[in-house]
Amino acid sequence: MKKRYLSLCSREEALSLMSRAFPPPGTCERVPLLEAEGRITAEPVYAPCTVPETRCAGMDGIAVRSAETFGAGEQRPVAISDYVMVDTGNPIPPEYDAIVMIEDVFPAGESRLVRKAALPGQYIRPAGEDIREGDLVLPRGHQIRPSDISALATYGYDHVLARVIRVGILPVGNELVPIGTRPARGKIVESNSVFAGSYLSRMGARCTRYEIVPDDPLRITKCLCRALRENDLVLISSGTSAGRADHTSEIISSLGTLLFHGVAMMPGKPVMVGNLKGKPVVGLPGYPVASQTALRELVVPFLVRWGLAGQQAAVLPARLARNIPSELGFDEFIPVSVGSIAGCTWAHPHPRGSGLQMNLVRANGYLHVPAFSEGLDTGTVADIHLTTAPYLVDRVLLCTGTRESGVALLADALAGRDISMHIFPARPIELIPALRMNSCHIGIQSVPEINGVSGIRQVPGDLQLMALHIGKSQIGLVSRDTISADDLGRIRVVNAPRESARRIVLDWLLAELGLSPDQVAGYSSEARNGQVMTETIIHNRADAGIGSSALAASAGLRFLPIVPESLELLVRNDALDDCRIQALQDVVKSVEFQDLLQQQGGYFTTKTGQIRELSPGFDRVGESREEGIRQP
Amino acid sequence: MKKRYLSLCSREEALSLMSRAFPPPGTCERVPLLEAEGRITAEPVYAPCTVPETRCAGMDGIAVRSAETFGAGEQRPVAISDYVMVDTGNPIPPEYDAIVMIEDVFPAGESRLVRKAALPGQYIRPAGEDIREGDLVLPRGHQIRPSDISALATYGYDHVLARVIRVGILPVGNELVPIGTRPARGKIVESNSVFAGSYLSRMGARCTRYEIVPDDPLRITKCLCRALRENDLVLISSGTSAGRADHTSEIISSLGTLLFHGVAMMPGKPVMVGNLKGKPVVGLPGYPVASQTALRELVVPFLVRWGLAGQQAAVLPARLARNIPSELGFDEFIPVSVGSIAGCTWAHPHPRGSGLQMNLVRANGYLHVPAFSEGLDTGTVADIHLTTAPYLVDRVLLCTGTRESGVALLADALAGRDISMHIFPARPIELIPALRMNSCHIGIQSVPEINGVSGIRQVPGDLQLMALHIGKSQIGLVSRDTISADDLGRIRVVNAPRESARRIVLDWLLAELGLSPDQVAGYSSEARNGQVMTETIIHNRADAGIGSSALAASAGLRFLPIVPESLELLVRNDALDDCRIQALQDVVKSVEFQDLLQQQGGYFTTKTGQIRELSPGFDRVGESREEGIRQP
Repeated sequence: MKKRYLSLCSREEALSLMSRAFPPPGTCERVPLLEAEGRITAEPVYAPCTVPETRCAGMDGIAVRSAETFGAGEQRPVAISDYVMVDTGNPIPPEYDAIVMIEDVFPAGESRLVRKAALPGQYIRPAGEDIREGDLVLPRGHQIRPSDISALATYGYDHVLARVIRVGILPVGNELVPIGTRPARGKIVESNSVFAGSYLSRMGARCTRYEIVPDDPLRITKCLCRALRENDLVLISSGTSAGRADHTSEIISSLGTLLFHGVAMMPGKPVMVGNLKGKPVVGLPGYPVASQTALRELVVPFLVRWGLAGQQAAVLPARLARNIPSELGFDEFIPVSVGSIAGCTWAHPHPRGSGLQMNLVRANGYLHVPAFSEGLDTGTVADIHLTTAPYLVDRVLLCTGTRESGVALLADALAGRDISMHIFPARPIELIPALRMNSCHIGIQSVPEINGVSGIRQVPGDLQLMALHIGKSQIGLVSRDTISADDLGRIRVVNAPRESARRIVLDWLLAELGLSPDQVAGYSSEARNGQVMTETIIHNRADAGIGSSALAASAGLRFLPIVPESLELLVRNDALDDCRIQALQDVVKSVEFQDLLQQQGGYFTTKTGQIRELSPGFDRVGESREEGIRQP
Repeated sequence: MKKRYLSLCSREEALSLMSRAFPPPGTCERVPLLEAEGRITAEPVYAPCTVPETRCAGMDGIAVRSAETFGAGEQRPVAISDYVMVDTGNPIPPEYDAIVMIEDVFPAGESRLVRKAALPGQYIRPAGEDIREGDLVLPRGHQIRPSDISALATYGYDHVLARVIRVGILPVGNELVPIGTRPARGKIVESNSVFAGSYLSRMGARCTRYEIVPDDPLRITKCLCRALRENDLVLISSGTSAGRADHTSEIISSLGTLLFHGVAMMPGKPVMVGNLKGKPVVGLPGYPVASQTALRELVVPFLVRWGLAGQQAAVLPARLARNIPSELGFDEFIPVSVGSIAGCTWAHPHPRGSGLQMNLVRANGYLHVPAFSEGLDTGTVADIHLTTAPYLVDRVLLCTGTRESGVALLADALAGRDISMHIFPARPIELIPALRMNSCHIGIQSVPEINGVSGIRQVPGDLQLMALHIGKSQIGLVSRDTISADDLGRIRVVNAPRESARRIVLDWLLAELGLSPDQVAGYSSEARNGQVMTETIIHNRADAGIGSSALAASAGLRFLPIVPESLELLVRNDALDDCRIQALQDVVKSVEFQDLLQQQGGYFTTKTGQIRELSPGFDRVGESREEGIRQP
């Protein structure tokens, strides 16, 4: 048995161990002003000159002695013969003490008529109005913005001394291939160093990504020593786990001191930090979500203590749409999608999983559940750290249900109208409660039609729901070999989850065939989604399952149609005026989208865009469909 | 008379005129993935492969048949002989359906003992757990984040098609010199194109800054035509005003159509937009604050309609610390500094002025007063658009008073402790009301000592205030020529503002000399600050004024000391525990700061860092000082 972690320390302990062990290196570099955006000043910047340097005109007009204009009025113009024409910014000769705007000046031969008295100092900018020589422009530690760049340029700078931390990133692992390479079976593209480089560069770190090193302690040691010479901090990605090829902790221990291995955070637990000749070496976990979290929550705050810029993202309070259990003693970081419904901001957690990079892509924020918390209940308001611009939150369409292929087409079509569709997996039974709570805009459901009735669902009497028809596809038996329905008593099936519409289709089919569930091998099994179902069949652990023709086609399996299935979006009646729902309806009714749905999605689009009200109580979808359809 | 603007249109009208005239160019470019952060996808990105490609190990351990582990327990280990060692990510042979973690595996000869039954599928990642071939990764119009870059790298991409808008920036003006050049008298460094380039580049625009063109219509026309050929949009900076050399509107009208000239916004009013062969040409105002506002509030939203990324900054509600009057019918944008005091977020407006770039540098946000508003009252809660990272708001120290040289030294010393000092000019009489309202942390005051009493102020009985002594300097007569106090009846003075401590010093001096105010030329004048006072003396409109030795030295004027003056910081007693105030006290008491204050600031530091309580009612500063001092 191999022990995974030496011990777990808390995130705060880890950070404090790092800060105590490694004082800021104080490294800096001269950066051209035009490239200085986002960088941090290494020293205070003082104005080398006074701006404006002399008294100057604040307007286009004439410079006058104000005393000569006294008594001027609309009906009593005063002729001024001693004046000088000035444009904005021109120095003013000392004898004049006011400017009359060009719009208020009327020519009269060599003189100029003025119809309003000028106040002393009027439209004159005193020298140093903006800044005086020697004044502080930027203190040290200031993150440079475009306005700062403009001011520094005005005051005579073309370079600025900025803090820089040199970070070496060393990818380690036999299984890794470089970005842009198609990985062979069992290999993966090395993306963690790409993330670290991208994330840390925008903080003002100068990142060097080294070439991938195989799992060979000698070669790792050699590359690590070089990276240490060339940098202030080194990240090793990865080899922090307990696999046979995970050498990082041994190498750190042999060359220096291991400060800690394992931090009570999830994801990101296997992170380690060592002290090698006074420089920090961070061993990052290999799973992308763990690696990104360890970087963001441990390395980034440490670099902030070293003087770089911290988290730029906005924090937004949002109501949780689901319970979020969390392990006591662990800081947890959970990707969420945030959107606003009727003035309330909701956060939906995405499934946790260190290997699920797509959940970080799908999320627009994350939630930190602190170590002392056992989790948060539905409805709790919690701070969400956004990963997108805050104004985009109002363009999010929150959807619960499944990611059918028709929905993906819709998501991209909506993106063309600046609406971002965020989808949370949910069981069919969860859709109506979510809509009732008003925590999502849309419930996505696939409803099979059996004997003309495509499903029955209970609609609370106090909830007015509409169903927007997207398209109709075929549902049937997905199998490795060609089969007929009659084969069901002789082959092994993999069933759909309980309460799912597809499981109802199998039950109906068995009843039609006169078979009881216990006559069907595998009836009690459950594949949690279509992907798992096709995998089970491909690997010969079952012969057939229930699914769509599109799923069968994408998995290279055979398909026997049984019943049609409608893809519908459920919407609250009171949300129909929401601009996002209106954009959704516009898209669904458009010819472009319907063509796409037919050609790429393989859907029938006869009724696409039709909307009908759901009956309160038990809504018999199929029966009521024909007479219930109305054009909104 | 020359008319300044053809007509003013509202910002909404201006944007809508632009959107109608210019459809999005739809230009895009292939960007290396490593440089794609912040860019916007031009088309949807689909996964070209399934990840993981095959079923694989989710943990380091052994792959087993789960059925063989059934019945295993802590006291009843089961020996497994048919297994295979796997590291995280290894493909799993089809015959195995579960992983046992390496930590739970105990060797027993060739076999392995297991002490817990494995569930089917345990620690196995199904193929496509992260993403399936053909699934949508990013919709079009998505702004790429580091997590997206990592995911795209994993899925096999090394480039991405991103939207790009080519923006040409043409600086125009005889008064302009390029960045890095020391401007001659009356010239200024061209910084507006630098701002535009920096601001627009981070939105995904590809900016080309052309060389400065003199105010010559033929040369401007030639350069404009070239810029139009090479770009999707051209900015002309500036020549939009009514000066003799402002040709922009004539040139636009001669080559195409002027859409509008003048928008009801402040600053930024003179902005104009023309249609030249179907491409937009924007004439920006010349004043930096006006130019930056017109760019941010007109050009940026237009580019967002063209598909680039919008405002990334957070919006924070804050209570206004002052009345903000605003002209009805004009959208106004006012730089503010935001900080938090005792759980409340306050916003202090900076002085308005199109030429005051430093106010944009000093501000950490801005307030938009909409066109329909005549202004906002003190205490109103309004949305502030931040220009710094949101987490920095809690590190702001809000200070009212004057920017003395000692205060600038303090500001940089505090920056070394990550505290950002924001100072709002205020008259001495305004300090205690601001502290009473708790809208600022610190009141900065300079208190002259006259006959041992350095000032009298009224302290409300319900407010406990402390004064932190910073240093003592000399105050006296600042003059062009060497003078003595006795000359005051014979020379012209420029006085300090009413209610100011320095005006009291002059009154006291005149009383000592037995002079009445009407015997002193210029007694009724007011220089609004030290800079204006020294300017008035230098330009021989007065002979002397009251000021500090540091001010006289920096202006090259003579100085006759009269009385000592203390620089003090007023703090509420209930704020002494605030970590920012504690950092302030630490800094003030440090030897490093006191050395700096003596050597660079020319202050006496005998009592620096001492803190005393102000007496309720009338506090006689000087009298009570000696006995009132306590070490906190």
